[in-house]
Amino acid sequence: MLSRDYDSQVCSLARSLEVVGERWTLLIIRSVWLGVRRFEELQRVLGVSRPVLSSRLDRLVEEGVLERRQYSNHPRRHEYLLTTKGAKLWPALIHLMRWGDAYYPEPEGPPLLIEHRDCGGHPTAELRCDRCDAPLSAETVIPKPGPAGLRHGRTAERIPTKRTR
Amino acid sequence: MLSRDYDSQVCSLARSLEVVGERWTLLIIRSVWLGVRRFEELQRVLGVSRPVLSSRLDRLVEEGVLERRQYSNHPRRHEYLLTTKGAKLWPALIHLMRWGDAYYPEPEGPPLLIEHRDCGGHPTAELRCDRCDAPLSAETVIPKPGPAGLRHGRTAERIPTKRTR
Repeated sequence: MLSRDYDSQVCSLARSLEVVGERWTLLIIRSVWLGVRRFEELQRVLGVSRPVLSSRLDRLVEEGVLERRQYSNHPRRHEYLLTTKGAKLWPALIHLMRWGDAYYPEPEGPPLLIEHRDCGGHPTAELRCDRCDAPLSAETVIPKPGPAGLRHGRTAERIPTKRTR
Repeated sequence: MLSRDYDSQVCSLARSLEVVGERWTLLIIRSVWLGVRRFEELQRVLGVSRPVLSSRLDRLVEEGVLERRQYSNHPRRHEYLLTTKGAKLWPALIHLMRWGDAYYPEPEGPPLLIEHRDCGGHPTAELRCDRCDAPLSAETVIPKPGPAGLRHGRTAERIPTKRTR
């Protein structure tokens, strides 16, 4: 049997989930990866309350998962970017997304397609490119609306290119 | 920009997170994978309240992520096993665990080591065996306490062999 103090002290998953372990946080990280970087946009896209979004963003900045960058002086406005640490969550995000595609499919197909920027291939189960075999990461792919995404009126242009630092 | 109804309707990650998107749920799945299968044990290991654990287990059984199996008649007692659908969450779990190992490390090393059952190798970043190159899954690995786990008094025998159906 696992020892009683397992979770509070020595479980890496528990420590990760303390940072990213609730629904909004992972959806925020996904949205920032998809290029939704500003508070108002995030609030609109996610439909989350302002105080919750604000506290989640603060936490993610504090933990170094997101970087807050000022893009306007008057009024003072910030945008959020994935840090390297944040981008390293990409494989877990994509695996959760694939699990959703497999077990909760839309009739038309996946809402979001992931393309290798260099050659247009798609990720295998091991997140390599199925065309050129390169290992894929947050930095080397482009998210595009899939069939179910297009049905809901998204076009490739409406998903801004994601950027990480 | 993503359309307003993106999350509520056509995001596979959002749909996955509706099932597994909060801390306890993923920790329950991890614990069941590690062989902690009974309500009392899960409650003790996770330190979660009984009503919360109970409602999370019900939800996971309803969604087909866990299977509830009776193991005693008097008193009537159940244990929980990962279904195939539940075991497919393993890559996401392991990536989150690796992220925790990388960014919130214990001084002694990882709390948990994952060994390929056939050859004793360990997972690469792509979750293949670093020794024999086989793709790894929940069914083909054995979790063992790592250095930080041993410090806390775990031994290999104290982590029961996980089993999936």
